Amino acid sequence: MAEKLALVGIGKIARDQHIPAIGANPDWSLEAAVSRHATVEGIDHFETLDALLETRPDITTVSLAIPPQPRFAYAAAALRAGRNVMLEKPPGQSLAECYALEALAKENGVTIFATWHSRHADCVPDLKAWLAERTLKKLTITWKEDVRLWHPGQEWIWEPGGMGVFDPGINALSILTEILPHPVHLSGATLEFPENRDTPIAARLEFADPSGAPMTADFDWRQEGPQTWNIEIDTDRGSARLSLGGERLEIDGALVKQGANHEYANLYARMAALVKAGESDMDLSPMIHVCDAFSLGKRVVTAPFHY
Amino acid sequence: MAEKLALVGIGKIARDQHIPAIGANPDWSLEAAVSRHATVEGIDHFETLDALLETRPDITTVSLAIPPQPRFAYAAAALRAGRNVMLEKPPGQSLAECYALEALAKENGVTIFATWHSRHADCVPDLKAWLAERTLKKLTITWKEDVRLWHPGQEWIWEPGGMGVFDPGINALSILTEILPHPVHLSGATLEFPENRDTPIAARLEFADPSGAPMTADFDWRQEGPQTWNIEIDTDRGSARLSLGGERLEIDGALVKQGANHEYANLYARMAALVKAGESDMDLSPMIHVCDAFSLGKRVVTAPFHY
Repeated sequence: MAEKLALVGIGKIARDQHIPAIGANPDWSLEAAVSRHATVEGIDHFETLDALLETRPDITTVSLAIPPQPRFAYAAAALRAGRNVMLEKPPGQSLAECYALEALAKENGVTIFATWHSRHADCVPDLKAWLAERTLKKLTITWKEDVRLWHPGQEWIWEPGGMGVFDPGINALSILTEILPHPVHLSGATLEFPENRDTPIAARLEFADPSGAPMTADFDWRQEGPQTWNIEIDTDRGSARLSLGGERLEIDGALVKQGANHEYANLYARMAALVKAGESDMDLSPMIHVCDAFSLGKRVVTAPFHY
Repeated sequence: MAEKLALVGIGKIARDQHIPAIGANPDWSLEAAVSRHATVEGIDHFETLDALLETRPDITTVSLAIPPQPRFAYAAAALRAGRNVMLEKPPGQSLAECYALEALAKENGVTIFATWHSRHADCVPDLKAWLAERTLKKLTITWKEDVRLWHPGQEWIWEPGGMGVFDPGINALSILTEILPHPVHLSGATLEFPENRDTPIAARLEFADPSGAPMTADFDWRQEGPQTWNIEIDTDRGSARLSLGGERLEIDGALVKQGANHEYANLYARMAALVKAGESDMDLSPMIHVCDAFSLGKRVVTAPFHY
């Protein structure tokens, strides 16, 4: 029987990704939406999460597609009411609140899932398997997109806790931490802050790999024209290029897989499996690298940004 | 029999605190010092850690009293050589490297101890016990000191990874995370950066307590005259004031305990117990709050700082 689910936050990502993915998965039944203004045709609407939790005790799972700043309060309320919780990335605006949510889920005997959608892109498992049998020599992340295209008019990404260019950059880091056979750590970073904004518009990261292989990430939100979401890897036996954010994989210059976008379908399948098994998945490693970049990074002030 | 120990980094904190504390503890025998320039009378001197590790396999434990930026490389080398490692605070310049060290200690079957000296101040256990039987209503941290007095001429604290005013502030956070009966998380922060420096000279933090009690921390490195290291707590049954960084405790306005400085003595006693038990202690909660403050905090540029 399908688990009853409510979606909180009916914005662009909810309509583009969450609602179609939930609708296509027979393990889930989308029963209600929580949003101050927006409604979803054919399902119950609540203006507040509290109203939903009081009125619909039959809804076992709450999926949060709201900005990170208010996410803790919503997630904590749902967990305390004994509901499973699925978190859009990033899972919060602070690491400490994520650890607190993890503890709260355990206390209440429910599932919590910190999702990283890019980690579930079609070619990520292929690249991971390929790399596992080789020795890493060099890794270069290039993640450059046009913020006006992907976050039109969104102010929360520029406010403290909104992460700025790390909002897309953390997607690359979620792939990095998935495919590497060992943990790495940041050794240096430079962050460019527009003079009128509280979060960075660009960042350049350097990681220390235990093997000494050079490892860098270049994030930029000022990319017009073609958009770039690439990870390029050199090894002792050939090179790989993951592109389109994980949908396309080339090995030694030849296309080996061209996938499609199944990221959110995979996320909801994973959430169904976690709920069934009574388990949680709260891997914070992509967010730890971002927090490290903020605390370790050199700050440079750059031109103001306006939509 | 005493464990043989080497001290790496012979600066102010080594001479003021580490060497006397080791000398007073019969569980330890200080055998060697590692420092490019400085020597310690009566014990072996090595210019590099590698030379020590090669020459003195009998030294089981390495204590690192060097700045956080190079600490990972030293700690990793010592752990890989099968030595126990004790880390001055903060335990690294990134969280990811601390998690990597913890994994490395486990792999090599040795002890790692991320020390937080203020947590071992004389009155901290008393305050913790007092608070455990009360309901928190308000908590205010005021940690204001003169950087010229405590870090004379030190440039590393102003470089990325040096943490700035969080270098003393993390001491207060190490007490906070020790005395509270439950975890809290940062809800907002403002960080003041001198226009010529990469780390903050002042910070104001707000925490979200599950009970809703107001909780703030005020860190400032520009305090001349009397220095302030206070934590003030209001509860349903009385108020407490911890001062002198944890050495003095007043309850409801009356002095209940005036301790002395046993912080480093307590740290080396704890390290001896960990080594004996084959255990590690790598609590990163104070550092997690600092990383959260850097990623969540609003940045304000202030007057340049010169020694």
